[in-house]
Amino acid sequence: MSGHRIVGTKVPKLDAWDKATGAARYGHDVSLPGMLHGKILRSPHPHARIKRIDVRRAEALPGVHCVLTADRVRVGKLGFLGDHPVLKGDKVRCVRDEVAAVAATSEAAAEEACALIRVEYEPLPAVFDPLEAMQPEAPRIHENAPDNLVPHRYEFRHGDAERAIAGSAHVVQGTYRTQFMTHCCLEPCFALAAFDPAGRLTMTSSTQVPYLMQSHLSRALGIHGKDVRVLQPTIGGAFGSKLDTHPYEVLAALLARHSGRPVRILYTREEEFVCAPTRQPMIIRMATGCDREGRLTGRVCEAILDNGAYTSWGATTPHIMLVGISSLYKLEHVSFRATCVYTNNPWSGAFRGYGNPQGTFANEQQMDELARKAGIDPVEFRIRNANDPNSTTPQGFRVTTCALKECLDTAATRVGWREPKRPNEGVGIAGMFHVGGGGRVYKSDACGVIAKLDDFAHLTLLTGATEIGTGSDTAMAMLAAEELGLPLGNVSVINNDTDAAPWDVGIHASRTTFIAGNATLGAVREIRRKLLPWAAKELGCSEDAVELHDGSAWRRDDPARSAPIEKLVRTAHFREQGEMFVGQCFYDPPNQFQDPKMRGNVSATYSFAAHAVRVRVDPETGKVKILKFVAAHDIGKVINRLGLEGQIEGAIAQGIGYALTEQLRIDGGRVGNASFLDYKMLNAADLPEDVEIHFIESADPAGPYGAKGVSEAGLIPTAAAIGNAIRDATGVRLHRLPMSPESVLAAIRAGEQEALDSELEVTGPLTRSGT
Amino acid sequence: MSGHRIVGTKVPKLDAWDKATGAARYGHDVSLPGMLHGKILRSPHPHARIKRIDVRRAEALPGVHCVLTADRVRVGKLGFLGDHPVLKGDKVRCVRDEVAAVAATSEAAAEEACALIRVEYEPLPAVFDPLEAMQPEAPRIHENAPDNLVPHRYEFRHGDAERAIAGSAHVVQGTYRTQFMTHCCLEPCFALAAFDPAGRLTMTSSTQVPYLMQSHLSRALGIHGKDVRVLQPTIGGAFGSKLDTHPYEVLAALLARHSGRPVRILYTREEEFVCAPTRQPMIIRMATGCDREGRLTGRVCEAILDNGAYTSWGATTPHIMLVGISSLYKLEHVSFRATCVYTNNPWSGAFRGYGNPQGTFANEQQMDELARKAGIDPVEFRIRNANDPNSTTPQGFRVTTCALKECLDTAATRVGWREPKRPNEGVGIAGMFHVGGGGRVYKSDACGVIAKLDDFAHLTLLTGATEIGTGSDTAMAMLAAEELGLPLGNVSVINNDTDAAPWDVGIHASRTTFIAGNATLGAVREIRRKLLPWAAKELGCSEDAVELHDGSAWRRDDPARSAPIEKLVRTAHFREQGEMFVGQCFYDPPNQFQDPKMRGNVSATYSFAAHAVRVRVDPETGKVKILKFVAAHDIGKVINRLGLEGQIEGAIAQGIGYALTEQLRIDGGRVGNASFLDYKMLNAADLPEDVEIHFIESADPAGPYGAKGVSEAGLIPTAAAIGNAIRDATGVRLHRLPMSPESVLAAIRAGEQEALDSELEVTGPLTRSGT
Repeated sequence: MSGHRIVGTKVPKLDAWDKATGAARYGHDVSLPGMLHGKILRSPHPHARIKRIDVRRAEALPGVHCVLTADRVRVGKLGFLGDHPVLKGDKVRCVRDEVAAVAATSEAAAEEACALIRVEYEPLPAVFDPLEAMQPEAPRIHENAPDNLVPHRYEFRHGDAERAIAGSAHVVQGTYRTQFMTHCCLEPCFALAAFDPAGRLTMTSSTQVPYLMQSHLSRALGIHGKDVRVLQPTIGGAFGSKLDTHPYEVLAALLARHSGRPVRILYTREEEFVCAPTRQPMIIRMATGCDREGRLTGRVCEAILDNGAYTSWGATTPHIMLVGISSLYKLEHVSFRATCVYTNNPWSGAFRGYGNPQGTFANEQQMDELARKAGIDPVEFRIRNANDPNSTTPQGFRVTTCALKECLDTAATRVGWREPKRPNEGVGIAGMFHVGGGGRVYKSDACGVIAKLDDFAHLTLLTGATEIGTGSDTAMAMLAAEELGLPLGNVSVINNDTDAAPWDVGIHASRTTFIAGNATLGAVREIRRKLLPWAAKELGCSEDAVELHDGSAWRRDDPARSAPIEKLVRTAHFREQGEMFVGQCFYDPPNQFQDPKMRGNVSATYSFAAHAVRVRVDPETGKVKILKFVAAHDIGKVINRLGLEGQIEGAIAQGIGYALTEQLRIDGGRVGNASFLDYKMLNAADLPEDVEIHFIESADPAGPYGAKGVSEAGLIPTAAAIGNAIRDATGVRLHRLPMSPESVLAAIRAGEQEALDSELEVTGPLTRSGT
Repeated sequence: MSGHRIVGTKVPKLDAWDKATGAARYGHDVSLPGMLHGKILRSPHPHARIKRIDVRRAEALPGVHCVLTADRVRVGKLGFLGDHPVLKGDKVRCVRDEVAAVAATSEAAAEEACALIRVEYEPLPAVFDPLEAMQPEAPRIHENAPDNLVPHRYEFRHGDAERAIAGSAHVVQGTYRTQFMTHCCLEPCFALAAFDPAGRLTMTSSTQVPYLMQSHLSRALGIHGKDVRVLQPTIGGAFGSKLDTHPYEVLAALLARHSGRPVRILYTREEEFVCAPTRQPMIIRMATGCDREGRLTGRVCEAILDNGAYTSWGATTPHIMLVGISSLYKLEHVSFRATCVYTNNPWSGAFRGYGNPQGTFANEQQMDELARKAGIDPVEFRIRNANDPNSTTPQGFRVTTCALKECLDTAATRVGWREPKRPNEGVGIAGMFHVGGGGRVYKSDACGVIAKLDDFAHLTLLTGATEIGTGSDTAMAMLAAEELGLPLGNVSVINNDTDAAPWDVGIHASRTTFIAGNATLGAVREIRRKLLPWAAKELGCSEDAVELHDGSAWRRDDPARSAPIEKLVRTAHFREQGEMFVGQCFYDPPNQFQDPKMRGNVSATYSFAAHAVRVRVDPETGKVKILKFVAAHDIGKVINRLGLEGQIEGAIAQGIGYALTEQLRIDGGRVGNASFLDYKMLNAADLPEDVEIHFIESADPAGPYGAKGVSEAGLIPTAAAIGNAIRDATGVRLHRLPMSPESVLAAIRAGEQEALDSELEVTGPLTRSGT
């Protein structure tokens, strides 16, 4: 279909005005009559036995309605492995641990009550480094995990990677370490729980997974899933942090149940830093080989993930980490193993990119280094190895559309890859492979949409797909408006109520535009089919001869003849035994759940990108200045150009922060920089002035109007591209994130070899046979 | 279908707990950040020219954001004939007239500001009696209505009624007068208007017609209908009073537009009495004849309605008034004319029964009197003339099911019609005919329902059908639960948002159980059709062999084999390319819009009832005590027995109030009893102790599970039955409502003839040819 009128244009997000004017209602704007305020008392120790809790003084405080401790409630456990108690009764395993919860008539009273609770702890030896935690003598964190290994392993083998590497002309191997990074959602965590008199729970929440939350809360609270309704206000950022149902959410419900009043819990900014999940720190050992022509031979990768004290749903990141490692370039032989290790650190979870940024940091630095060893230009080296359309990767991913080569070429050209460089300048490039057509990490990857066209040609899309700021609502509205020929202003999206809207698995894996977009098209096409006969009748032509655009139906062969769509609706409606226009679609993409061997076509299509960057490194301070940043993305088809640019720009900013400045400093299990003063999230002034974003439209046959997912893509290759540019500028390669001025300076001073050696502390040969 | 498990049982309303515990959120519980409070300045004069309005002192008051007068706003007119300005600029026509509106940060400030507005009026001669208003020398209220006649007449002729009456063996004629009655909604009127930054209006309202309100507000405010969204909180009673869009609602929107803030207007109780619409007072002249065998020959009726100053949508009551007059009994010859007359009284509107209580008060008293004249027992007389199933009435109403005879028989038997009476005791009976399958008074009489069954077998019904306290949500939920074999607790009804829910014309004409019920069945049957194959597969049988009840699918031939419905849903859903269960239906009943001659089958079916009452009249005080009250209703099929009993009981209470105590005293255009102290609404203690309610299940083929509408029916015959009982007890007949102790006593003292004569003040022969 050509000549789109809405799809492909630049459109402000539907909620932009509301957000810019303050009209948007976030969690903290929501209150209910009689509502109490909940606060949580947390452990001061990273590891300790709880001997006694005395809540009497807290309970006696005026305004306090309810104090809960583990022995006062019956509540199920949370998390991917169900290893996470909501209230900790026997012992605490990290400083985030919830020991008691209070509901009071004011936040101040609840806080004061928390301070009045006396907890007697017996501190236990603690361990904060995953490598140490794996040692036999390490303190044991969970009874059922004697070696502190999370009882869920990730292993993938395709071909014989060790032998392939052994026979390679060139091999690069190294160890890469990534840091704690926190999401920095501008809206702190929030939950508002209220039971109705019949015992049905309404949870108002900023969750990314409202329908999964129904199950989570049902299990934790011991009530039937039908008795859980989840409402969502405007959500001020999530980035994966709200993919779990967290203890604070269950605690809000428990406090509501025990107090008989609605209860709201709202994090302070400090709590947000300390208590929201983080991106997993990883230690990644990787070796990659190539032949004399620079063709990849094989790759071996072992990753150790700091799980923290409990296992979040986001602890399944090795699934997606592997995606880029196995499938960004053509590889015949791949071996991968990831081990998640319990520590007494705050637990980590899902974060935009879901392991892929960590894996790509290693992978794409090795590609760079390997190219150098093989004496091939790094861009040419990548293009030589790049995936092709209509191919299948070792994990069984069926790549349909793939414009990686075009992305690499565009990024390199635009960054001036071969242009002269001043002293201390360097250029770097990195590619990216990610799911672009959903990611079946749950039994269903579907989204339901109900569409309703009213007498004023106002279209409502009722969907479970959650808007967390990505612009997905706007993309859905644009697709619907294009398909029905309506002005965009005629479309509303309602997606804040599990009772009202049909199911969606949640917002993750860059899936919403692709999947909710396809569901939207399915629903509005039902309406279109019902509408066309009325248009044809009104215009005196066949249905084939009708076009819908600009709010009217037009006769293709006689543009002078048209009829407003709202008039057609009213004609159909306002008659005896009239009809109205509702359509619905439940779209579950043609992808597969991975088998235990990590094989299966997990996404209906895949997205590609390349980022190229030109930096100048100050040899006196180690400070890296980004002179130019070019992002080229194969997004299938541009739906909202403005939203897409915003997504990529935001991801680049987050990626640069990941590369250069952001690190949640956790020392001895305690967070040392729990404020925006101490945690350096980049703001607008910190961003490079010269950022170019290019979109390659590979027109995916499965995507809505050809589109593929993109929300995470812009972050994934950024750190590697910057690392490669630093290497180009300085001759030294950094293996640890963030690449702060101090570490860059240290690396420059120590020289490349020493910096490399210092990282090789994981013992044993990497290219051994897998165990 | 037999063996219902839910339909026909006694079930508390879905919102009963919420309402009983205070959890329900009514309009006054709703507020928005930054919200202002609106107050309205009204005319102190029933008729006056506005010479000057000075708002300067009001505007200067701290906290005042906005003061509006007619010359400051552009706004369209309201009402059925568009004769109703929202703000009155040139002149005021009744004491309800809105002269200015204020928005301020508190109600007190807004009230104070209203008091500071100086309006200079030039009082005009006023007229308060419709008969006087029709005289040539009467003051003219609207420029375009020189005779003060509302320019919309109601005339119906079938056969030659005048000749039929002239040739009758017995004729009764008389004039009947009914009073102002007000709805006494426990929740006062309320509106909350907020514009979003894009200019889209969200109106939170207790309206009965959310989708029509979109049009009304669109026209009044000059914005497109797509830019109006109507939300409804819990509604504390409506009874027809919220069938219009009122000036206060438009004023809330205008104040919001002009102040840039959300604005809420909430009536005081006094405003509620003075400013909410009333039931039309009527003067009804009627003559009815019968032959020697007591068969009706013909009827002539002329009605004059006090319209008040403006024409509400509820001013079309003659349509429904005629229904009972023309079609309760078999009549070959009918002539009817109704004239609505402007006066300087507050304007009247729609009220439960919509003209039929007034008409039936006349009609059923005449039936009684005619039986006496013919020497036939009044019950026997009625049964002899009663309509039969599968007949067509003069207006073209196709009566399908009709159990009027059974109703009459049951009511008479149970009240002890032939049992001996003590001194001053009497028995009376009256029948009732009303629309029971919708009433196509608007171009569409439809209702849309979307049904969604989730993984926990929770069913949501999303519908435009409004719950105003009638229990319609509960009836819909029961129908859906029965049809899908779900426990009632699994069903939620969401119907508070025009954006989210499909269209419905509004709640009126006792239509919701019938029409929304049929739409519900249509929607859930789609789900049932999709679900059965999964059940059949799971149970290893054909779809025909599957039964759904108690939350499970059962194999009819092997009751030991069953599968929970939620499990079937999950089986269908949680698989690759799974499906989910959404169904929808837009049900527009097979009825017709009446033609200008008032012919057309306006309802898909009709409801019948008979009320019989035994009274004792105190000859010293005139006080009427109801000893026994029997209501027998042909409701087609009982859906919720408890809700149905509640509806009938409530209607009886309202009907007794209408008959005996309730009257809004309007004197010189001013309301004299604007409080519950002075306006006698009956409460529980005032009701008869002995009330019997009987349901005749005529199993209507068009109704959901056979049900017909009933919400208004219980009020319609009550006053006539009581009047007939008073006649039986005292020998005198009252022609004026309410039949207060004073008027009963006066009638007894004056004797019947005099009482009758005093009513015959409408001049001219009644049985003339229509003009």
